[in-house]
Amino acid sequence: MDLIYLAPICAVLGLLFAIYSFSIVKKEPAGDEKMQKIAAAIHLGAMVFLNRQYRAIGAFVVVIAVILAILISPWAALCYVIGAGLSAAAGYIGMHSATKANVRTTNAAKRGIADAVKVSFASGSVMGMSVVGLGLLGLSIVFIILVTINGGFASVVGVNTVVSILASFGFGASSVALFARVGGGIFTKAADVGADLVGKVEAGIPEDDPRNPAVIADNVGDNVGDVAGMGADLFESYVGSIIASMALGVAGAAFASQLFGETIAPLNLILLPMLIAAFGIIAAAVGTLFVRTKKNESSAIHKAFNTGLIVAIIISIISTYSITSILLYGQFGMGFMFAAPLGMGIWFATIAGLIAGFMIGLITEYYTSFDYKPTLGIAKSCQTGAATDIISGFAKGMESTVWPVLIISVAIFIAYQFAGMYGIGIAAVGMLSTLGISLAVDAYGPVADNAGGIAEMSHQDHSVRDITDTLDAVGNTTAAIGKGFAIGSAALTGLALFSAYALAVGIETIDILNTRVFIGILLGGMLPFLFSALTMTAVGDAAQQIVVEVRRQFKEIKGLMEGTADPDYTSAVSIATKAAIKKMMLPGLLAIVAPLAVGFILGPLALGGLLVGSLVCGFLLAVTMANAGGAWDNAKKYIELGNFGGKGSNAHKAAVVGDTVGDPFKDTSGPSINILIKLMSMISLVFVPVLLLL
Amino acid sequence: MDLIYLAPICAVLGLLFAIYSFSIVKKEPAGDEKMQKIAAAIHLGAMVFLNRQYRAIGAFVVVIAVILAILISPWAALCYVIGAGLSAAAGYIGMHSATKANVRTTNAAKRGIADAVKVSFASGSVMGMSVVGLGLLGLSIVFIILVTINGGFASVVGVNTVVSILASFGFGASSVALFARVGGGIFTKAADVGADLVGKVEAGIPEDDPRNPAVIADNVGDNVGDVAGMGADLFESYVGSIIASMALGVAGAAFASQLFGETIAPLNLILLPMLIAAFGIIAAAVGTLFVRTKKNESSAIHKAFNTGLIVAIIISIISTYSITSILLYGQFGMGFMFAAPLGMGIWFATIAGLIAGFMIGLITEYYTSFDYKPTLGIAKSCQTGAATDIISGFAKGMESTVWPVLIISVAIFIAYQFAGMYGIGIAAVGMLSTLGISLAVDAYGPVADNAGGIAEMSHQDHSVRDITDTLDAVGNTTAAIGKGFAIGSAALTGLALFSAYALAVGIETIDILNTRVFIGILLGGMLPFLFSALTMTAVGDAAQQIVVEVRRQFKEIKGLMEGTADPDYTSAVSIATKAAIKKMMLPGLLAIVAPLAVGFILGPLALGGLLVGSLVCGFLLAVTMANAGGAWDNAKKYIELGNFGGKGSNAHKAAVVGDTVGDPFKDTSGPSINILIKLMSMISLVFVPVLLLL
Repeated sequence: MDLIYLAPICAVLGLLFAIYSFSIVKKEPAGDEKMQKIAAAIHLGAMVFLNRQYRAIGAFVVVIAVILAILISPWAALCYVIGAGLSAAAGYIGMHSATKANVRTTNAAKRGIADAVKVSFASGSVMGMSVVGLGLLGLSIVFIILVTINGGFASVVGVNTVVSILASFGFGASSVALFARVGGGIFTKAADVGADLVGKVEAGIPEDDPRNPAVIADNVGDNVGDVAGMGADLFESYVGSIIASMALGVAGAAFASQLFGETIAPLNLILLPMLIAAFGIIAAAVGTLFVRTKKNESSAIHKAFNTGLIVAIIISIISTYSITSILLYGQFGMGFMFAAPLGMGIWFATIAGLIAGFMIGLITEYYTSFDYKPTLGIAKSCQTGAATDIISGFAKGMESTVWPVLIISVAIFIAYQFAGMYGIGIAAVGMLSTLGISLAVDAYGPVADNAGGIAEMSHQDHSVRDITDTLDAVGNTTAAIGKGFAIGSAALTGLALFSAYALAVGIETIDILNTRVFIGILLGGMLPFLFSALTMTAVGDAAQQIVVEVRRQFKEIKGLMEGTADPDYTSAVSIATKAAIKKMMLPGLLAIVAPLAVGFILGPLALGGLLVGSLVCGFLLAVTMANAGGAWDNAKKYIELGNFGGKGSNAHKAAVVGDTVGDPFKDTSGPSINILIKLMSMISLVFVPVLLLL
Repeated sequence: MDLIYLAPICAVLGLLFAIYSFSIVKKEPAGDEKMQKIAAAIHLGAMVFLNRQYRAIGAFVVVIAVILAILISPWAALCYVIGAGLSAAAGYIGMHSATKANVRTTNAAKRGIADAVKVSFASGSVMGMSVVGLGLLGLSIVFIILVTINGGFASVVGVNTVVSILASFGFGASSVALFARVGGGIFTKAADVGADLVGKVEAGIPEDDPRNPAVIADNVGDNVGDVAGMGADLFESYVGSIIASMALGVAGAAFASQLFGETIAPLNLILLPMLIAAFGIIAAAVGTLFVRTKKNESSAIHKAFNTGLIVAIIISIISTYSITSILLYGQFGMGFMFAAPLGMGIWFATIAGLIAGFMIGLITEYYTSFDYKPTLGIAKSCQTGAATDIISGFAKGMESTVWPVLIISVAIFIAYQFAGMYGIGIAAVGMLSTLGISLAVDAYGPVADNAGGIAEMSHQDHSVRDITDTLDAVGNTTAAIGKGFAIGSAALTGLALFSAYALAVGIETIDILNTRVFIGILLGGMLPFLFSALTMTAVGDAAQQIVVEVRRQFKEIKGLMEGTADPDYTSAVSIATKAAIKKMMLPGLLAIVAPLAVGFILGPLALGGLLVGSLVCGFLLAVTMANAGGAWDNAKKYIELGNFGGKGSNAHKAAVVGDTVGDPFKDTSGPSINILIKLMSMISLVFVPVLLLL
């Protein structure tokens, strides 16, 4: 059992790697005075938002902790607070780094693309490694301490109790993720849409123009949405998949014994997910070192990222093989593959998860990059106006669900076939094991985006902006891929958590022919639609407030349009902050109340149906919205390169409409669904003891 | 058992009522020469489309009939052909009537609104009564003949065999519905979008302007989509719900015996759905007589329709009470309500279905009429451009799923609680029992729409156009309500068919915890997304072809814009016809192949999952698309009344974009999903004998 100490050790190594990455960022100078002034405004806005948001979340966390302490146990409450605290800390670190790295990326871009990639990607690594490091460190230490208190590893009852308490740790992470994703998503798109509607459309000034009073809010939004929000989302998936797999450990042992006549100690299956994750951190760190580029081309940057990802995936596949054979069978060797059916099955499940994650990324790239047919078709349809742009983009978004569904289905099938429900949990752990690098690639995007904004606002040389534009274009695609990965991992994690829930509540079958289950599925399916409606309306309302404020400033501040007077940036930031925090409450409450209400009124079977309904509909809706949004964005970019009339043409105007519609699709509603799926399963798992009392 | 003969008798009465209604239409003169010329062009275009479409469907029907004859039985093949033929006949009759009534409505409008409503609603009644009359007549006669051949009503085995053969009758109806809905939907919106994109947007001429070469195609589209397509859709629901309930008759008897210790002959439960439907025809006919209005206000017309609907619903509730007590217990009396638990349960299920259908209509009206907040909010958001219009419309569409889901859930819960799975079938039959009038209200819309088009094209007096505009505005709302009713009834029918499938294939439980079932749900959920993507893309592509043709005519025909030369209307009709028939093939094939492929590869349990997944996701997506589309349409209408700047303002331009996006949403993709849901369950039910061989 001493192997378990590898988990906190690797987690600490991951955190050290984050510190090392941050040193790369800090080594770069912050540029001239004007750049620093803009960067400081963005940094300040982001931190103010985070502080206010965390205060709101803090109040919420305290309330839930008290409820957990009363209904479940004080230990559960403590775990909950720790999970929430660590997720918040990871978000804070990532955003702090991103708002330091943006201006340094602009500065590095003066010397060329290689250095600019280095700085921005290093900042991404800070986020990625903080998430996995803090996640695994917290989880493993809490686990070890609780096990020691509850009679040590020898006590089977003790270990099982601990695993059920751990769900609260995940619930804590979910709570932060909910508000970080939803609140951040509302902030970022309210600012973006608001800035564009008045700036680009009414006043006719370019994006990131310093005369636009909402421009700082827009740049702040990139950080709070795409860095902190995305980080919290994947922090939740990461710890959720590990916790779900641990909870399914006993089921895994039963599966092995029934199907293969193999005797495996459940404890080993409970420890394994943490160790797969532990080695994944090392794999991600090594992969990160392979991300280097010298060429000033977007394809070269893509290649560098993919090299790093593939190296990490290969190392993770090898290390999972090793740790599985050592932990489960006490030895390492090639013969294991044929001699140990469950071990082999676990390995296959990990591979299925890793490959599925990578493939969903490729499909997402296909559907959202203008190097391929779908986005080109959407760009073409802009020639006949905004309506055909919207229709074809939405159609492509819906079509783009086909492959992700097939990929996830195959991964689930393989994982289950070879390792039962436990295998599904492990597939999710596998997919997320290299999160340290895949999140880094994703979190690089908003840094590059900000760097471009700062270059524009501080009137840098054209060559600098060309480089940041290249980085930004790559960032758009990596952001889309990141979203595909986030929803794919959310689906697998959600399914694993759902299985853990069913196991914990002692349900043998959840029969669709039972009307309550069917009603549960129907209600569950409806929730992502309602959730999306609420978040989308929130963006619209908040954007409207920004529009009014920007219009006011354009009218009242003399000399603003001529560039002789400065706009008041803080008021837009403050409006977006207030609106986001206010409007994240209702959808947040819905995600928490709905599963509990259905569970208590219609019973645990209907709740099972609810979880599956929301999982399936949520997955489909999230993929549709994320990919349609990404494709509209890049169709616009393609036209801006001079195609179909280029900037200012009617096709471009149509494309701007599509892009604006896509903004809340891809950055607010779509990603928020990930949280809904996971949070509802997590909450069901946590409240099983209460459900059983009924 | 002699009571069963009431079914064909009432059906014939329904058909006589259709003939009577048609006589009302024919009594009205067809107006001046110009009107007649335009009407003849629309009539011809519609009939040409229908003939070509039926030829394509005919070939398809022959192929499937041969397959059924080989795999199932020659009787099944025959039933299939009869079901398809009767559905096609109903569509033909309804469209013939509609294309005669449109110009007569214009003519009647010269005398005032009362006469115009009378003519257009009479044409709607022709459609409504033809659908229920032919549906029930065919079903009951085929049933009686087959039972007689198979040993009479005394032979339990014989009756059960017959019921399983009847599924093929429903499959025939489904096959026609598939192509009528999908093909008609593509035609109507390709023509509409194509006409608008060049006419309204590029050339700046008003809707229904005779100079637009696609204007006749647009008017033809109203008929092939909203009359023939809608009719086939509901014909399928109507016979589908009856067949499903009959197939669940045995389950109903078992339910009564287990829960209430009541002994009911299954045969009576098999006959009951047809008799509820039979009395529903009478109820609808009586209700129709109550639809009268004198006032020239849209609210008065709404009130007249609602009066008719409520009268029909009340009569249906009373007659169901009577027929249930007589058929099941051989007597009629108030005491029955407490003495006979299953009878009472069946009655409650019918009421649940009827009220659910009516309430979904009200909710749809709330979300799509500009008398209420949602559509007004969307209209308001047009002021900040097309993007905010799209975002708020889509958000409202998603939000609008909440109440329909709750209503359907409650109806299912009540029906199941009181009469088991059989109750769900009966609830669907109940909801559809008054179809004769609810479809009439729905089919009145496109007649009024056409009447307005003819008034515009033939340059009628302003007063005439005011009246047709009022009729058309009401028609927009009734069309939206009709769509809500169609999807609601499709969901209940789909669920009943799914239950019948599970019963027939001998599945006791369909367990979500079984990975194959989960994968089935996931794949099933994806199908409505893919199906919608295909139909939406088809509309886009076909509209593009129309755009090219209209542009060509504007350019090449001298004097067209000045009104001195006529455009070539037939070419646009012909292009839309060809495109629609070609492009309905792929989605059609998908609907047929997907369930069979999953059934044969992953097994009957996965197929069960697939049906539920597509039912839930399809319902949600269809409601979203139908209501968003309806709301965008009416938001535009509201602005055209002079609000937010009125016609020609920027808000109006934005609203036109929303309306155009909504066109394929509400008239192609959304309604097509109804068919997908029902057809896949129907096909699964039909192919049960083959599935069982595996």
